[in-house]
Amino acid sequence: MLEQVATIVRQAAGYMVTDGFRIEQKDGAANIVTSSDYAVQHYLCKELAKLIPGSGFICEEEDYLDPDKELVWIIDPIDGTCNYARGIDDCCISVALKKGSDIILGTVFCPSRNEMYCAELGKGASLNGKPIHVSDRPFENALFITALGVYVKQCAEYSNSIIMEVYPQVNDIRRFGSAALDLCYIAAGRCEIMFEVRLCPWDYAAGMLILTEAGGYVSGLKGKPMTFDRPEPIIAANCRESHTRLLETVDRHIASIPY
Amino acid sequence: MLEQVATIVRQAAGYMVTDGFRIEQKDGAANIVTSSDYAVQHYLCKELAKLIPGSGFICEEEDYLDPDKELVWIIDPIDGTCNYARGIDDCCISVALKKGSDIILGTVFCPSRNEMYCAELGKGASLNGKPIHVSDRPFENALFITALGVYVKQCAEYSNSIIMEVYPQVNDIRRFGSAALDLCYIAAGRCEIMFEVRLCPWDYAAGMLILTEAGGYVSGLKGKPMTFDRPEPIIAANCRESHTRLLETVDRHIASIPY
Repeated sequence: MLEQVATIVRQAAGYMVTDGFRIEQKDGAANIVTSSDYAVQHYLCKELAKLIPGSGFICEEEDYLDPDKELVWIIDPIDGTCNYARGIDDCCISVALKKGSDIILGTVFCPSRNEMYCAELGKGASLNGKPIHVSDRPFENALFITALGVYVKQCAEYSNSIIMEVYPQVNDIRRFGSAALDLCYIAAGRCEIMFEVRLCPWDYAAGMLILTEAGGYVSGLKGKPMTFDRPEPIIAANCRESHTRLLETVDRHIASIPY
Repeated sequence: MLEQVATIVRQAAGYMVTDGFRIEQKDGAANIVTSSDYAVQHYLCKELAKLIPGSGFICEEEDYLDPDKELVWIIDPIDGTCNYARGIDDCCISVALKKGSDIILGTVFCPSRNEMYCAELGKGASLNGKPIHVSDRPFENALFITALGVYVKQCAEYSNSIIMEVYPQVNDIRRFGSAALDLCYIAAGRCEIMFEVRLCPWDYAAGMLILTEAGGYVSGLKGKPMTFDRPEPIIAANCRESHTRLLETVDRHIASIPY
């Protein structure tokens, strides 16, 4: 099944053309969608519905279909659309399969780097077929991936206070612009910790399985498991100690979801 | 001459091996150097000295040789060493040639993407041989590349106050981790504005020529031209209006170089 999904995702990447796509504004100036997002999503939904007849869909581009089914695909056709529209490498296709409340399969594919990240629940994570594992770098040597909360700018103050508390304790920060790839970067041992104040299920569903199967830790506020029916803050790390340390900081700054 | 330099830089990239290199700490935990940095620098210095006998050298890895000569190479063997050491794409070789107080030639090469950025004073800028130009996106739609001042963490407060003022006015921020490539990204029209509180000449010498030859603007505090004998803040943009607007914010927050 995982191989079949990966093949479909690779084929869908053919719709991530390098030019000739249209760009539309969504709800705010910082939030755009391109004709490629729609084309990728359309192809994925068509092929994945054939793979598991009767499955449901939760997709970024406003395409909910039977989201309460036992088996539901959670799809971001292009995560990092802003980067994609500008020719910046950090963008990907993210596809997860949810069974009940568990993500059981996840694939994240970055076409510009030809990097296919895959995971199946309980079976480990891989990059282009080779097993991957989180790094063993401690908090003090961590690269901290974060953002200022791009679509809800009032969240920027929360994010900023957390960044300014964490930054002096770690190596440096990164902001690449694709949350799904960020989680894979921690899974592959390139970065160590991540906080974002507001991500949607399609941003993290596949990446969080890839990260946890690679030995990492992911949670929402107060260490609760991620849900898949609303936007949420996310706290991720390569090891339990760093996850706990980042979570304590986040929980001190944010008592409840601020939106 | 530019083609010869580009060829030498491509050859030097052969020393940026993907594994088997040693990592050493420099003056702080966040500042590292690898055996590859030394190998690339050694090769570049050897070959560039043959290309212009009697030229001087200013290199990141503590290799100053006749820096007061009329013709001086300014070299960062690996810009973005932290990324390089972790297998993250955003790292490059940066080589500039300074004549008097002008940079007259610049090359920035990112091996993982096979992207060779080149410029000659008055002759435009190119990426892999094709002319490049800055984007025409206005400030409101800018991607803002910045950092918190990684090696001198007391600079983080200055950087943060500037970021928090600029962020609500623009599209989003990015922090890739290689200043030389950041400048090339603006030159190639992928991002629009950049501020860093403290960069060294080898971080920006080549990239700033590539950006200005692509139609962009670069300055230090108060709009002064960059110098090449000390660390400096840098303010860069795709257009004059955005450069002025970013500069006014920076000048309001930082009266003089804070180190």
